[in-house]
Amino acid sequence: MSSEYDPRSVRYLCFADARRAFRNGSNTPRAFLEGCLSQIAEREPDVKAFVMVDTEGARRAADASTERWVRGTPISDVDGLPVAVKDCYDVRGWPTKVNSGLFDDRPAYVDAAHVDALRRGGAVIVGKTVTTELTMAAPGPTWNPWDLARTPGGSSSGSAAAVAAGMVPFATGSQVRGSTIRPSSICGVIGMKPTHGAINRNGGFDPQPSLNHIGLLGGTLTDVWEIGRYLARVAGPDPGCLPLTGSNLLPEPRKPCRFARQYTAGWPLTDDVSKATFEAYLETLSEAGVEIIQPGASEELSAYEAATAAVFEHHSVLMFWEARWPLRALLDARPDGVSDTVRDYIARGEALTEAEYRCAYARREELRARHRDLNARVDGFITLAHIGPGQIGQPKVGTPWYCDASSSIGAPSFNVPLLSVDGVPLGVQIMGFEGADADLAAIAHWMLSVQRAPDTGSV
Amino acid sequence: MSSEYDPRSVRYLCFADARRAFRNGSNTPRAFLEGCLSQIAEREPDVKAFVMVDTEGARRAADASTERWVRGTPISDVDGLPVAVKDCYDVRGWPTKVNSGLFDDRPAYVDAAHVDALRRGGAVIVGKTVTTELTMAAPGPTWNPWDLARTPGGSSSGSAAAVAAGMVPFATGSQVRGSTIRPSSICGVIGMKPTHGAINRNGGFDPQPSLNHIGLLGGTLTDVWEIGRYLARVAGPDPGCLPLTGSNLLPEPRKPCRFARQYTAGWPLTDDVSKATFEAYLETLSEAGVEIIQPGASEELSAYEAATAAVFEHHSVLMFWEARWPLRALLDARPDGVSDTVRDYIARGEALTEAEYRCAYARREELRARHRDLNARVDGFITLAHIGPGQIGQPKVGTPWYCDASSSIGAPSFNVPLLSVDGVPLGVQIMGFEGADADLAAIAHWMLSVQRAPDTGSV
Repeated sequence: MSSEYDPRSVRYLCFADARRAFRNGSNTPRAFLEGCLSQIAEREPDVKAFVMVDTEGARRAADASTERWVRGTPISDVDGLPVAVKDCYDVRGWPTKVNSGLFDDRPAYVDAAHVDALRRGGAVIVGKTVTTELTMAAPGPTWNPWDLARTPGGSSSGSAAAVAAGMVPFATGSQVRGSTIRPSSICGVIGMKPTHGAINRNGGFDPQPSLNHIGLLGGTLTDVWEIGRYLARVAGPDPGCLPLTGSNLLPEPRKPCRFARQYTAGWPLTDDVSKATFEAYLETLSEAGVEIIQPGASEELSAYEAATAAVFEHHSVLMFWEARWPLRALLDARPDGVSDTVRDYIARGEALTEAEYRCAYARREELRARHRDLNARVDGFITLAHIGPGQIGQPKVGTPWYCDASSSIGAPSFNVPLLSVDGVPLGVQIMGFEGADADLAAIAHWMLSVQRAPDTGSV
Repeated sequence: MSSEYDPRSVRYLCFADARRAFRNGSNTPRAFLEGCLSQIAEREPDVKAFVMVDTEGARRAADASTERWVRGTPISDVDGLPVAVKDCYDVRGWPTKVNSGLFDDRPAYVDAAHVDALRRGGAVIVGKTVTTELTMAAPGPTWNPWDLARTPGGSSSGSAAAVAAGMVPFATGSQVRGSTIRPSSICGVIGMKPTHGAINRNGGFDPQPSLNHIGLLGGTLTDVWEIGRYLARVAGPDPGCLPLTGSNLLPEPRKPCRFARQYTAGWPLTDDVSKATFEAYLETLSEAGVEIIQPGASEELSAYEAATAAVFEHHSVLMFWEARWPLRALLDARPDGVSDTVRDYIARGEALTEAEYRCAYARREELRARHRDLNARVDGFITLAHIGPGQIGQPKVGTPWYCDASSSIGAPSFNVPLLSVDGVPLGVQIMGFEGADADLAAIAHWMLSVQRAPDTGSV
């Protein structure tokens, strides 16, 4: 069934490695895809990461890519990349269902912006991955590849599971609260939530666009960064935003001088083993010369810590308010199409006043200002990425408490898969500053470099 | 055929007046609608403002509203309002075509946010109005109600024409450059472009969401303001934005202390009669005690004037860049679906680099900062709303040169229909400051109050 997870030795598919092999002729996109399809054939019946797999379409795209590589004329950095797309985004010709009874089977008319960019670059769209109902409620059928009795986390459940099961090197996700970082932690893969708006998330079901981020989930940091930069160049940023900034190649490792350690609303809910595991990891960072600053170290940090612990109060007001129109309009169109959870969600939105919205908006602006003010003081913030390993029995997809702050602030964050508890993954979350995604990637690179032995494969 | 336009005596339909009559029983929504339908029957064959009119659906909605009013239980401030919706927005069950060959006839699944709010409030959705191709290129079939040989302006062509022809008291539009203010000027109706994001424009074809604004077109300022505030409360603002601020009722008239007069890129293209008409109007303002400041009055104003004259340079980069994904993806889906103009538009987007986008973005931020800095110095900015009356022969829908600045800055603006040239309308544009829409409405109210004799009807 499942093997024990060891963050020091785990190896996932790496497209950057494969691309080198495409270039020197020792591998082809078609052969690489066939490896993915074999793994899907083997693991998918248990893991259930996919809503659909387009084997024939993927083979055609991989063959076309193979021809280009053989001719020495790949069209982009993602030519031949097998990719899975979260089923909240549109893929031309396929329905977008979002694990919901709200939508019918009519095929999407055009590709979402990032799917369009991937397809245009020669990537191989393998299939669509399971999400929770409307990315916010009832879990899908997916299980955790590292322990089939556990949740894979959500709402980017299938994307995290597909990468962790070695079915694809890379998959896309989204995050309004914790929907990318959380499943990445629980499945033990790299998860990146860029600065808000830095990569175009248009084209699909997106009921809270001002809070939503595209999420990038991959087996290696190299792939996640390079594909992220490709998407920023070709799909562009969200309308009105600046694109993901930095080199097209993964930035060199950089040891941070100091992390602000945060507790947030997550720590009180975290199990003791996970707490001890995280404390031990912070100890290794200290030993390596990274200063870990506690919230009590200054008034500013202490006030910021208190503000992050209360993020949900205003973040949820913005979420419920912003989702009012699309959800209630969809519900009118199909009154039996949603769960009670979503119905409650809509009711909460309907009950909000303009004044409550303005107040939540102002509180978020305050939090953002506090966060910006810390820019000169710390290299970033460090927490667990989740309150523990994935829950057994899959009644829920996990909790967002550690992730709310970076979602509300819009600052970049990574899940760095460095820890394990009970033989399954637990991630470390680092959060940086708006627009400084590349610096945070350099820090993540350093964390992975010192944690993993040099012979355990690609970062 | 058409009668001569006189801004001092023209009377359009006014829903606020009708609502008073609904309340005291001297009129009903059904009877009011029948007046609209009669006018449509009479003028529509010549004017061609509508893509479609849903006579039966409108009658059903008006009957239901009539019952509520008769019982004394209207459900909102817009109960019984006959409204026309620009055909770039989704109306449930009707196709959204945007005067383009890109879209098929499949009916929209849900109402756009503002349509949903109107319908929920008991408004009567009369039909959808003609726009230009994709709101940016080939004109539709609409003609100017004041002179059927002239363009109605665009891209909210049908909305402006429907209001000017007395077919509806109110219609919705949109504006990325001049698409609301321009046709309002050319058709002689009130046009309002709120602060960017102040009213939810989601739900429909919207290839430049960070530049697009919902537009409000009406026969009276009272209707435009009150319906705008209703939409801000019920549909909310654009995601991530603050809603239109101010009283639910039209603010009392306020005489401005000083206007900064602007020339922009529009003045050199303006015909001499229109120039003289505008100069004469500025004279009446001066005589009324409003100080008109010329750009040369200070270095700041002079630099700001130069910056507004160059807006198109960066605004167009942002437009072309932002529209890349949706347009090229749509074009892939239907390669013969667009005009050469749109094809050129896409090509310009494709040719842009990330660096050019960042540069245009920075220049817009500079312009916005310059504009903000003038907040304490002037009450607002005044220009013509268009380079002259609507062109004869309809080869184009007008030019955006006077409107680009407020679109780029995101500041509110109004077309105040105060002038006429050649017996057809010409509007005065005033622009205010972000979030201060209510103050600008108070100024527009004053301008209309002093211009129009007190016995010429509702403002």
